[in-house]
Amino acid sequence: MQLHLSTGTTSEGVVERDLTVGGVPGVLWSPVSPTPGSPLLLLGHGGGLHKGAPGLVARAREAVQRDGFSAVAIDAPGHGDRDRSDEDRRWIAEMRRVRETGRPLGPVLGPFNRSLADRAVPEWRAVIDALQGLPEIGADARIGYSGMTLATAIGIPLAAADRRIRALIVGGSLAYPWLLEAARRVTVPVEVLVPWDDPELDRASGFALFDALASEDKTLHAFPGSHFRVPADRFDTRFFARHLGAPEPVGRR
Amino acid sequence: MQLHLSTGTTSEGVVERDLTVGGVPGVLWSPVSPTPGSPLLLLGHGGGLHKGAPGLVARAREAVQRDGFSAVAIDAPGHGDRDRSDEDRRWIAEMRRVRETGRPLGPVLGPFNRSLADRAVPEWRAVIDALQGLPEIGADARIGYSGMTLATAIGIPLAAADRRIRALIVGGSLAYPWLLEAARRVTVPVEVLVPWDDPELDRASGFALFDALASEDKTLHAFPGSHFRVPADRFDTRFFARHLGAPEPVGRR
Repeated sequence: MQLHLSTGTTSEGVVERDLTVGGVPGVLWSPVSPTPGSPLLLLGHGGGLHKGAPGLVARAREAVQRDGFSAVAIDAPGHGDRDRSDEDRRWIAEMRRVRETGRPLGPVLGPFNRSLADRAVPEWRAVIDALQGLPEIGADARIGYSGMTLATAIGIPLAAADRRIRALIVGGSLAYPWLLEAARRVTVPVEVLVPWDDPELDRASGFALFDALASEDKTLHAFPGSHFRVPADRFDTRFFARHLGAPEPVGRR
Repeated sequence: MQLHLSTGTTSEGVVERDLTVGGVPGVLWSPVSPTPGSPLLLLGHGGGLHKGAPGLVARAREAVQRDGFSAVAIDAPGHGDRDRSDEDRRWIAEMRRVRETGRPLGPVLGPFNRSLADRAVPEWRAVIDALQGLPEIGADARIGYSGMTLATAIGIPLAAADRRIRALIVGGSLAYPWLLEAARRVTVPVEVLVPWDDPELDRASGFALFDALASEDKTLHAFPGSHFRVPADRFDTRFFARHLGAPEPVGRR
C-alpha cells in the first residue's frame, strides 16, 4: 500500500514526520541518525484519543531518545483526522447514554471495540509492511506494540495475527470474550497494566486478560487510580529495550 | 553498637566484607571506589534462607555494579549462622507439620514471623546506625530495603519504624493483621511483588498488603508461578536508582 511521508520537523534529536498508508494518517518518530535495523515501536491511542495524544507522543519521543527506536502511531478508525461511520456514531451515542446512567459499559464497548479492531488490525499490518520498506527500518526490524484501552483491544488481536510483533504492553480493557480468545494466541513477552481503582474498568478484567495470555514471559503491573493517569516511569522502562534488542542506548537513562 | 568488618575480597568491581553488629552477622557489598554519600540497599532474605542466598547476593552485586550503591544483608534471628531459640524450633516443627497436612500456614507463620520481625527490626536499625559511621556511607546516605516473604514481614515494620528507609520492594507475604497495621504507617515509595500462582501465598494477601500501604507512590507487580523464582529483571530495575537518587550509573544497563 502506498506510503506517503512528509519532510518533517526535528527537535531534540527526534525527527517527526506525518505519514499516510492507504489513506490512514499517522506519525513517524525517528532518530536523526537512525541505526539501520533498529527496532520499531507501534503506539496505539486510547478510545476517543488520537495519534497526537500528549502521553503517546511523550512515549514515542522517549523511545527514540532513550532507546534509539523508531516509533509510529496511526489514528484508529473514526478517531483523530478520520471520518466516523454512521455505525460508529451510533455506538458513541449509545456509550454516552450508558455512561450517564451508570450502567456497565461492556455490552456497548465490546462490539464497538471489536468492530474497530477488525478494521484497525489490517491497517496496522499495512503500516508495518510500508515501514519495512524504508531503509532506516527494513524488513528485519524487531517490532513492539504499546497501548491501553482501545489500543489493547486492537493490539492483542494484532499480535495474535501478526508474528512480527515481538513484545507488547497493554492494559485497561474490559475482558471481552473475543479479546480473551485472541489473548490465548499471544505467546510473546507482554506486560499488562491494571488501573487499581478505575470506576469503569474492574480489576478482574485485567486479571482475566493476564490469565488468558499464552505468553510464558508475562507480568502484571497495577497502579493506584484510573487509566487516565498511567505512571509509566514506575514500570519496567527497559521492557522493549530488552525484548527488541535495542542498539546501545543513547542519551539519558 | 560495635561494628566489626573483615578486610574482604574483591571481584568484578565489588568489595565483599563480612560484618557483625552487636553479634549479628552480615555481609557488606561496596564499590571498589565508593562515592561518598552514595545510597545503601538493605537486603532481607526469605524464610529459611540466609545472607548468602544466591538470589540475594546477585541483587547485592547488581546494586553495586549497576547503580554504584552499597548493599548489606544480615541473617535474620535463627537463620544462617545464628542460633535458633527453642521457641523458634517449635514454630518450625509446627510449620512443617502444617505443610505436610496441607493446612493453611497463616496461623503458625503469623506469630512466628511477628516474633522474628520484633527481634530483627532493632537489629536492622543498629546495622544502619553502624554503617552510617563508615566514611563511604555516612549519615546522609539514602537507604532502600528489598526482600520477599520473611523479609517483607521484617521490612514493612522496619520502614514503619524508621524514617531512614526511603523506598522498598516487598512481596510474597500473607496478610497478617499486624503486618497490615504496619503497612498503614508506610508512606514511602513501594513496589509489591505478587506471585500469581503460589500454592502457599494467595493473591488476595498481596492485594491486601498493597491496599494497606499508605504510600502514594506504589505499584503492584505480579508474575506467573510461585515466590521461589522471582523474575526480577521483568520489573522496574530503576526503582531504587530513581528513589535513592543514585550517582551517575556505572557499567552495563
